[in-house]
Amino acid sequence: MFEEKKSSTTPLSSLGEFGLIEKIKEGFPIAQASSKVGIGDDAAVVHHPDQTVVSTDMLVEGVHFDLSYVPLKHLGYKAVMVNLSDIYAMNAHPTQITVSIAVSNRFPLEAIEELYAGIGHACTRYKVDLVGGDTTSSQTGLVISVTAMGSVKKEKISYRSGAKENDLIVLSGDLGGAYTGLQILEREKAVYKVNPQSQPDLSTYAYAVERQLKPEARKDIVELLEELKIVPTSMIDVSDGLSSELLHLSKASKVGCQLYEDKIPIDPQVLAICKEFTINNTTAALNGGEDYELLFTVDQSHFEAIKNHPLLSIIGHITDQASGCNLVTGLGQQIELTAQGWTSHPEEEEL
Amino acid sequence: MFEEKKSSTTPLSSLGEFGLIEKIKEGFPIAQASSKVGIGDDAAVVHHPDQTVVSTDMLVEGVHFDLSYVPLKHLGYKAVMVNLSDIYAMNAHPTQITVSIAVSNRFPLEAIEELYAGIGHACTRYKVDLVGGDTTSSQTGLVISVTAMGSVKKEKISYRSGAKENDLIVLSGDLGGAYTGLQILEREKAVYKVNPQSQPDLSTYAYAVERQLKPEARKDIVELLEELKIVPTSMIDVSDGLSSELLHLSKASKVGCQLYEDKIPIDPQVLAICKEFTINNTTAALNGGEDYELLFTVDQSHFEAIKNHPLLSIIGHITDQASGCNLVTGLGQQIELTAQGWTSHPEEEEL
Repeated sequence: MFEEKKSSTTPLSSLGEFGLIEKIKEGFPIAQASSKVGIGDDAAVVHHPDQTVVSTDMLVEGVHFDLSYVPLKHLGYKAVMVNLSDIYAMNAHPTQITVSIAVSNRFPLEAIEELYAGIGHACTRYKVDLVGGDTTSSQTGLVISVTAMGSVKKEKISYRSGAKENDLIVLSGDLGGAYTGLQILEREKAVYKVNPQSQPDLSTYAYAVERQLKPEARKDIVELLEELKIVPTSMIDVSDGLSSELLHLSKASKVGCQLYEDKIPIDPQVLAICKEFTINNTTAALNGGEDYELLFTVDQSHFEAIKNHPLLSIIGHITDQASGCNLVTGLGQQIELTAQGWTSHPEEEEL
Repeated sequence: MFEEKKSSTTPLSSLGEFGLIEKIKEGFPIAQASSKVGIGDDAAVVHHPDQTVVSTDMLVEGVHFDLSYVPLKHLGYKAVMVNLSDIYAMNAHPTQITVSIAVSNRFPLEAIEELYAGIGHACTRYKVDLVGGDTTSSQTGLVISVTAMGSVKKEKISYRSGAKENDLIVLSGDLGGAYTGLQILEREKAVYKVNPQSQPDLSTYAYAVERQLKPEARKDIVELLEELKIVPTSMIDVSDGLSSELLHLSKASKVGCQLYEDKIPIDPQVLAICKEFTINNTTAALNGGEDYELLFTVDQSHFEAIKNHPLLSIIGHITDQASGCNLVTGLGQQIELTAQGWTSHPEEEEL
């Protein structure tokens, strides 16, 4: 961690764009039936008999990631996850991705190979094909742009706009991990700057740090919903924080919502880190972001199927639009949700 | 030209990502029947009953464009063209694009609006829907990543790999314009640096400069081929220069080729600029790149339909692989084509 890798030796310029594309192509065989032609022509050819969903996200060095503590392999993996998460949030299955990177010559070939190793790991694990992309030089930082495509039957698509009054609000997994993991990494970076000999022991923070560095898109939840024969009335992934996502969903569905503070699932390790950093844990969950959990609404008739499922939490319900979007605190107060989220400590509002 | 725009006043930060997305969404209504849902959910939804082709390209400030002489509106237009050209090169029709941009805060909102105005102009003109994207900040330069999707019947796809011995090699339009246009713009930039009061008169170079700043993807050629009931045996777009593209095509098709120097179409204005800059015009055509013409091969039976068409030139024919790829010069010499292209002046090899 925090080490500059000096062992790498192959300058990118020695390979050229075409050499790099050949190398990448070798590592990414086509697996999906819907991928007809992958890397190597002017465009890839795919065929989805059902509906195709498409999403794209760009990650920029210094804005979305800090290479002083994000290993390139993890970065490649995360860049794919961020996009697959959007596909799952439509209740669809991802099938293909394209990846464009702009990279400065300060990166040797081995660094790019690390990045693509992470992308490849994500592709293998999530059964997604890399079918195209672009590699170009950059005069400054690293930029990764991923476009993901997925497939879904028309009647199974979950938009943001379908939530109905009295629907249950359901969340997968738990929140706040990625945000608290980032706090740990930033602290260790600051320590390292003062003392480059320091060897941080992150083992007690492993869960939170992993949530930040190596998030997983919730493929399992979309599969579970299929098994349970539930099509969410609305769905969104939690990339920006629960508060902001709930507001998006409510606005698109023209409804209000009631969220219960004591129902928000937070891992004990995250609670401990919040205590250590004197961060309000509800604030971390509401505004932290980057957890890539799925937030969705279902008809009340599914209550029994969901209520005790270990991967799911019912955290509230949908109301009429006039009632607005509210958080009911542990003490029973009702507070309006805002995009910046509720906070008991005003000084944390930039969170 | 070359002026820093100081009249713009709305800082991007005053709008935020969501405000910007709303503004963009307003300007891009959905037009294609295959676009089911556009901007605004986790992913767009499209449906192509035929095959879907997908291509992506990234343009990076300081590498692919120089904002000192590229107006943002033209840049937006060109970023779309570069991608549509790849779709046409599959003999397909583009239908949707996604656009991700990373932009530093030195750009006011008005600059981003200019960029999207160019993207919008391209979408309207080529009947393509903007269905998604991402806007993010950048600590440095501007990065634009476009992914284009298109549709084509399976039996009409033209890959790079289908060229057969004795096929005719056909090129749309003419070559060298974009490259010579760039020489003009670079010269004017150098003049401006010395004398900021200078007002360049580019009217005698209008064609070449426009080829550089505002290229058009050859939608008309794909439509013409349909009309003529010709499916090219292979096709590629000329983004890197004729020489490099012919070598790609020959390699993928496992054939050789014979290219005739005096058949390569070059505009008189381009010839004049080559003379002015003492650039060999064949070199400009072979290696200049960025003309976004279509290069394709057809069976000899189509000779009559193509030979006198004003938009098309027959520039050579396909041979067996053992014969290699050769340029037959105007003097009848035969020279092996290389990716850097043939040049009579060694000092021009970096071209």
